[in-house]
Amino acid sequence: MLSPNVSNFLGCDADYASARTVIFGAAFDSTSSYRPGSRFAPAAIRSESYGIETYSPYQDRDLADAAVFDSGDPELCIGDASKALSAISERAAAILSDGKRPLMFGGEHLVTLGALREAVRRYPGLNVVHFDAHADLRSDYLGAPLSHATVLRRVWELVGDGRIWQFGIRSGTREEFAFACDHTHMFPFELRPSDLSYAVQRIGGAPVYLTVDLDVLDPSDFPGTGTPEAGGVDFRGLLGAILCVSGLNIVAADMVELSPPLDAGGASTALACKLARELMIALSKKE
Amino acid sequence: MLSPNVSNFLGCDADYASARTVIFGAAFDSTSSYRPGSRFAPAAIRSESYGIETYSPYQDRDLADAAVFDSGDPELCIGDASKALSAISERAAAILSDGKRPLMFGGEHLVTLGALREAVRRYPGLNVVHFDAHADLRSDYLGAPLSHATVLRRVWELVGDGRIWQFGIRSGTREEFAFACDHTHMFPFELRPSDLSYAVQRIGGAPVYLTVDLDVLDPSDFPGTGTPEAGGVDFRGLLGAILCVSGLNIVAADMVELSPPLDAGGASTALACKLARELMIALSKKE
Amino acid sequence: MLSPNVSNFLGCDADYASARTVIFGAAFDSTSSYRPGSRFAPAAIRSESYGIETYSPYQDRDLADAAVFDSGDPELCIGDASKALSAISERAAAILSDGKRPLMFGGEHLVTLGALREAVRRYPGLNVVHFDAHADLRSDYLGAPLSHATVLRRVWELVGDGRIWQFGIRSGTREEFAFACDHTHMFPFELRPSDLSYAVQRIGGAPVYLTVDLDVLDPSDFPGTGTPEAGGVDFRGLLGAILCVSGLNIVAADMVELSPPLDAGGASTALACKLARELMIALSKKE
Amino acid sequence: MLSPNVSNFLGCDADYASARTVIFGAAFDSTSSYRPGSRFAPAAIRSESYGIETYSPYQDRDLADAAVFDSGDPELCIGDASKALSAISERAAAILSDGKRPLMFGGEHLVTLGALREAVRRYPGLNVVHFDAHADLRSDYLGAPLSHATVLRRVWELVGDGRIWQFGIRSGTREEFAFACDHTHMFPFELRPSDLSYAVQRIGGAPVYLTVDLDVLDPSDFPGTGTPEAGGVDFRGLLGAILCVSGLNIVAADMVELSPPLDAGGASTALACKLARELMIALSKKE
Amino acid sequence: MLSPNVSNFLGCDADYASARTVIFGAAFDSTSSYRPGSRFAPAAIRSESYGIETYSPYQDRDLADAAVFDSGDPELCIGDASKALSAISERAAAILSDGKRPLMFGGEHLVTLGALREAVRRYPGLNVVHFDAHADLRSDYLGAPLSHATVLRRVWELVGDGRIWQFGIRSGTREEFAFACDHTHMFPFELRPSDLSYAVQRIGGAPVYLTVDLDVLDPSDFPGTGTPEAGGVDFRGLLGAILCVSGLNIVAADMVELSPPLDAGGASTALACKLARELMIALSKKE
Amino acid sequence: MLSPNVSNFLGCDADYASARTVIFGAAFDSTSSYRPGSRFAPAAIRSESYGIETYSPYQDRDLADAAVFDSGDPELCIGDASKALSAISERAAAILSDGKRPLMFGGEHLVTLGALREAVRRYPGLNVVHFDAHADLRSDYLGAPLSHATVLRRVWELVGDGRIWQFGIRSGTREEFAFACDHTHMFPFELRPSDLSYAVQRIGGAPVYLTVDLDVLDPSDFPGTGTPEAGGVDFRGLLGAILCVSGLNIVAADMVELSPPLDAGGASTALACKLARELMIALSKKE
Repeated sequence: MLSPNVSNFLGCDADYASARTVIFGAAFDSTSSYRPGSRFAPAAIRSESYGIETYSPYQDRDLADAAVFDSGDPELCIGDASKALSAISERAAAILSDGKRPLMFGGEHLVTLGALREAVRRYPGLNVVHFDAHADLRSDYLGAPLSHATVLRRVWELVGDGRIWQFGIRSGTREEFAFACDHTHMFPFELRPSDLSYAVQRIGGAPVYLTVDLDVLDPSDFPGTGTPEAGGVDFRGLLGAILCVSGLNIVAADMVELSPPLDAGGASTALACKLARELMIALSKKE
Repeated sequence: MLSPNVSNFLGCDADYASARTVIFGAAFDSTSSYRPGSRFAPAAIRSESYGIETYSPYQDRDLADAAVFDSGDPELCIGDASKALSAISERAAAILSDGKRPLMFGGEHLVTLGALREAVRRYPGLNVVHFDAHADLRSDYLGAPLSHATVLRRVWELVGDGRIWQFGIRSGTREEFAFACDHTHMFPFELRPSDLSYAVQRIGGAPVYLTVDLDVLDPSDFPGTGTPEAGGVDFRGLLGAILCVSGLNIVAADMVELSPPLDAGGASTALACKLARELMIALSKKE
Repeated sequence: MLSPNVSNFLGCDADYASARTVIFGAAFDSTSSYRPGSRFAPAAIRSESYGIETYSPYQDRDLADAAVFDSGDPELCIGDASKALSAISERAAAILSDGKRPLMFGGEHLVTLGALREAVRRYPGLNVVHFDAHADLRSDYLGAPLSHATVLRRVWELVGDGRIWQFGIRSGTREEFAFACDHTHMFPFELRPSDLSYAVQRIGGAPVYLTVDLDVLDPSDFPGTGTPEAGGVDFRGLLGAILCVSGLNIVAADMVELSPPLDAGGASTALACKLARELMIALSKKE
Repeated sequence: MLSPNVSNFLGCDADYASARTVIFGAAFDSTSSYRPGSRFAPAAIRSESYGIETYSPYQDRDLADAAVFDSGDPELCIGDASKALSAISERAAAILSDGKRPLMFGGEHLVTLGALREAVRRYPGLNVVHFDAHADLRSDYLGAPLSHATVLRRVWELVGDGRIWQFGIRSGTREEFAFACDHTHMFPFELRPSDLSYAVQRIGGAPVYLTVDLDVLDPSDFPGTGTPEAGGVDFRGLLGAILCVSGLNIVAADMVELSPPLDAGGASTALACKLARELMIALSKKE
Repeated sequence: MLSPNVSNFLGCDADYASARTVIFGAAFDSTSSYRPGSRFAPAAIRSESYGIETYSPYQDRDLADAAVFDSGDPELCIGDASKALSAISERAAAILSDGKRPLMFGGEHLVTLGALREAVRRYPGLNVVHFDAHADLRSDYLGAPLSHATVLRRVWELVGDGRIWQFGIRSGTREEFAFACDHTHMFPFELRPSDLSYAVQRIGGAPVYLTVDLDVLDPSDFPGTGTPEAGGVDFRGLLGAILCVSGLNIVAADMVELSPPLDAGGASTALACKLARELMIALSKKE
Repeated sequence: MLSPNVSNFLGCDADYASARTVIFGAAFDSTSSYRPGSRFAPAAIRSESYGIETYSPYQDRDLADAAVFDSGDPELCIGDASKALSAISERAAAILSDGKRPLMFGGEHLVTLGALREAVRRYPGLNVVHFDAHADLRSDYLGAPLSHATVLRRVWELVGDGRIWQFGIRSGTREEFAFACDHTHMFPFELRPSDLSYAVQRIGGAPVYLTVDLDVLDPSDFPGTGTPEAGGVDFRGLLGAILCVSGLNIVAADMVELSPPLDAGGASTALACKLARELMIALSKKE
């Protein structure tokens, strides 16, 4: 007798009970002001993951040993950000309440809010490590309070001053840069090892939510995203930075803003898969 | 001294006061469940309109004589359907209150609701002529009442039984087809001249809102749309049908669901421009 | 506790025991002489199936009632046609031995051979109904006996004279057309109702393998295929023909040569999904 | 010892001396007002010709028997229409002076002028059979007398009243349609057999230049062209029309306006190859 | 009453009288020998400019304070380089005669000649700062003296020896490199700060025309151009170089060779917009 | 009389007798597990070579002086790796037996085996210099011994321990990296000058086969390949490395895995052409 047709991220075939990290996708991009398409990222990442290896020569470890369960994607209400965030929160809460770590693939950056508000409820004192080209600190965007361009402002309302660490920012309004001066730790333009080390030391053992907006990469390395912003970091720089912060007490994480329709040659999706592999292996090292 | 940089639809250079038809764009596609992109249609239609002629050999008339003013696009709140519809209504109301006919280029089909609810307020007894591949009669879609898939249901709530005339429908749920049996006039699959004549006769001199979802065309004729549905009509069929109903008392109209990112070769955008030209010329004939 | 991530064709969620039709994909295109890419069709068909409805207004029936199980894709040895065919045969044999009907999504046309040779083993006297733009009757192609261009010749070696019914053929060598005169029933260029009726009558209650090479469609209707051949039939013509032969005793079927990388706008994949839905519903009517 | 790398149109391997038809390409598109790209057509047609068969089931003849020589492309001065036309004329004159029939692959439609003016010099009383979506009868275009939009006007200055037969025209200015009324035979919109027969009878045995602008086809059949114009004929219609006029005394011919960069899936290029095969075979029938 | 539909570059909404910099587009690419498409750049740059911010974190200034007027695009005679250059010169002369600085968006590099010859007429002793991958110093190209490949040679004929400063050149014929040795200042391959400083010092307060051929960037940073040449500089390098020379007495400037049809993901157009923003802000600093 | 239509790589017009390097293409990609398309590379490289110059400013030499003959492509049996390799071997043997150096353009990496086994037969003690992102050292792939993923393992069986020098490797299974430790010289991740110098010194005057898998480049520099692997080297790094090893006694060489269908903007093909030019010029320096 034949078994049902299961479609997971490469090598993420642990059973739920033994898994420590649990993947899900948040296929939502309704507030994308410019070029939607990130809703197709979870499916593309799973499908294209079979084009890479499970083994990381960078860490000399194999993804098959990392005990990850892929829980698929909750169905989201396209066009109603508030309802979509509720469905994301529900999935994140289910994973967190089982003592596991959610790893969410966006979708646009707003989806972070759905997962993060569950993490902050469960882990008071939560810090946020944020890689991005954009500050995402507007109070509203075209009149809407819930938007990819406001998500870190909403997060700040939850975690408070001095808890958000922003790296690689190179675009925003004058007001956003002024807001960051007063309320967050912002390290613009580059990913400097010294800045990363400083953050790691300051955060110490506090619980951390890691959010990676892939447009922190230069568009030459990562063309497949909706708001490409020239002047970013390269793959090795971002890989190094992620490995650097992976030793923190990361209780939840996400990777957002891959847009497969804008990734003609497939290289951006392949890069995202590789980065996800490295992150999953790095997180498993502590367990 | 140099003048400012104006960018209108080809030949639509009447001044506002003398114009009878007023164009605007509704660059919104946040509820598109499948492949967004129609938000780029108003800009693409204007830009590509310069690839066609102003003269129609089909009607032996020229667009330059049709007295159309292009009022640009209102700024819409991406990701919040309710606010976006308000901005659309505001623009439509401004045009209608000056005694002119709005012609809106979508965007997704939901934008029809914003313009139509102003038309029905001003013209009681409004009938709706609807060309589409999809019934769009769901009561809600993934939990959202405002969606491209529910727009004709919302319209029905405004205009009531027997006022909606649907042509070319070839996709929907079992419930939508049942609903149409009870509440609308539906002529599925084909655009038969006999059906069109019947509708024209029955509607008589009543005010009419004409809504053209371009996916009523077969995907071979019109690939550049988000939910292509095989088995549709060809360009000549749709052109004939539109000329046929253009003699009605059309007080407002729209053309929706062109998605330029899905129109690699540009033929769908060119077709939409040509159809818009024919519609504008046909509407001007009565004036 | 969360369940595993299952990814089936829309509405094909029957359990295996109660299913009458069992889907699988044959993701193989190594012998494609011109533009490979059909190996991506099974994944694309499943993924894009969520863009269509389960309900058929053409047949007034719903796919959810058709009792289909999606068994996923066997892993195939890319670059070795012989090994790949063995794996396909194995899957087809498993389904047939449980008294069910395999429905295979290619892949290139050569995959038909893997499934059909199991069908002919189980059902002596098997007839083959073949929709295609190409005769596929070469004895070898560039020296290779196993090729998409030779597959019907190999099939003929299994089923013998007068058992293959070819419709829509409009390309081939002089030798292939001569071979067809002597050994198969070929109805070139058009899908004429009279020809189809004649075949249905002649075949009667004999077991039938139905193979649909989607390039029988005109490239305007179906651009997403590796060897587009102008002058083909349109969607309604093919749908009508398939509904016409669906009353035969079809013991196995396939649909091949969709190539998603060549389907920029997605319309070909959507058409294939719709045709698959109609075929699955039509087959279920007799049960 | 290895031979040099020759790259001809499929099956056009006759030696020059015995050839009756001689192919060359005119890779020029500098006056294309809208979307250039047709300069790549000659190379694409040769390259993609290997995707079709040499055998025509429509005419039951093989291209290998048609005695065609492929003379490659003269180098053209991009950006200077006048110099480019001189180089085209030179090639056409060389072929005509050897008593052979030039068959030119454009390039944009202006290239016709370069070949045709040599044909009219050698064959007084030349008639022109013209398939096109556009009248191409402007006296100038954006101030330029040499343009794809003026080419038939320039031709008329060479051949005079009543010698140009235009089929399929569905776009032009009011002035162009008026000019056609007075000076050419224009049969707009359709390719009606009765119109074609009338022209064949009237032309009789006079020498004929056949020019096929492929945008006479509907964009659904032929998306790969710079100015797609909805409402055209399908492949079978054009094939039938070409076979119909192929019995005339055709002394030179061309096929223009394929634009490979706009032909994402390759179907337009494949169609052009197939049409070229049918034309070459049909022309060879009389010899 | 509604206002007309104006379409400017983001934030360039000064009235003409108060503007110091005046934008216009030169939508011309007829001499592009390889892949045309740059004619679409002015429209694409304006349209895509709404995807970036008006604020520059690099310079801590806002484009809204830079007093730029967007004067749209003059209509150009496609296919006749000489006439097109006249129309460009006319626009540039109008701006220069009002004491303002023209900033032109190409189009292909030949358009520089149209603007520059007006600048040299008004500002004797004009120097030219030239960023490019190609030397563009041929005396003619395929027989044509006016070409993107000859434009700096024509410029040299106007400004004389020692007035042209070329940076980033990495492609050309042996003759072009020899010509540069004798007549221009060429700094090939890299943008070295020391070379830039040397040029800034040597030029001093002389009037300067700045011409930026965007293909000086590496194709990984800027794929959307017609003649991509590997081995170029990255975005940060070019931004730094432009800021470095922006302190010179720049009386006119241009940015050329963006080709939107070759910019599938949109990143090149976005980069050009960002670079244009930085250039406009930098130029406004001195005023 | 007109000459036949020859289509060579730019400037490779030496006659066979005087040529020292002989080009041919191996248009084969049947074992590509992921995204085929490299079969189109030989045609694309030839066609696009006309977009670059013959002169190298890097080496101050011209390709026209390098005495290269382009012998076209042998016809390969698509879908049967073993037969295809035989045809490749036959071509390589013909060139080698005339005392010339074959330079093969793939095609997928498996084609290396066809040429290399002839080189090793003629030159015992052959060393292999291998630039690649992938180790390609599997013993089999999906059951097939002949595959792009196994090709260096097959090569090792021919040349033995310590004869393969691998640079830039950053992907493989745990087993492949272990195999490399024992049997090859592997320098992973970077192209360090010190590693290259070490290899050059150790190899000395031994005969060398140089195989360049272009995916050793970072996908930002070279998106047009089937298995893009982030974290690679840039163009200047690879150019430097190739010039560094070009002083060795190179008896045969290849350049593989360019996939034109994945190279939307054409930059990867242009890069490959430029690299080929540099390699051909560098090789000619010793003669």
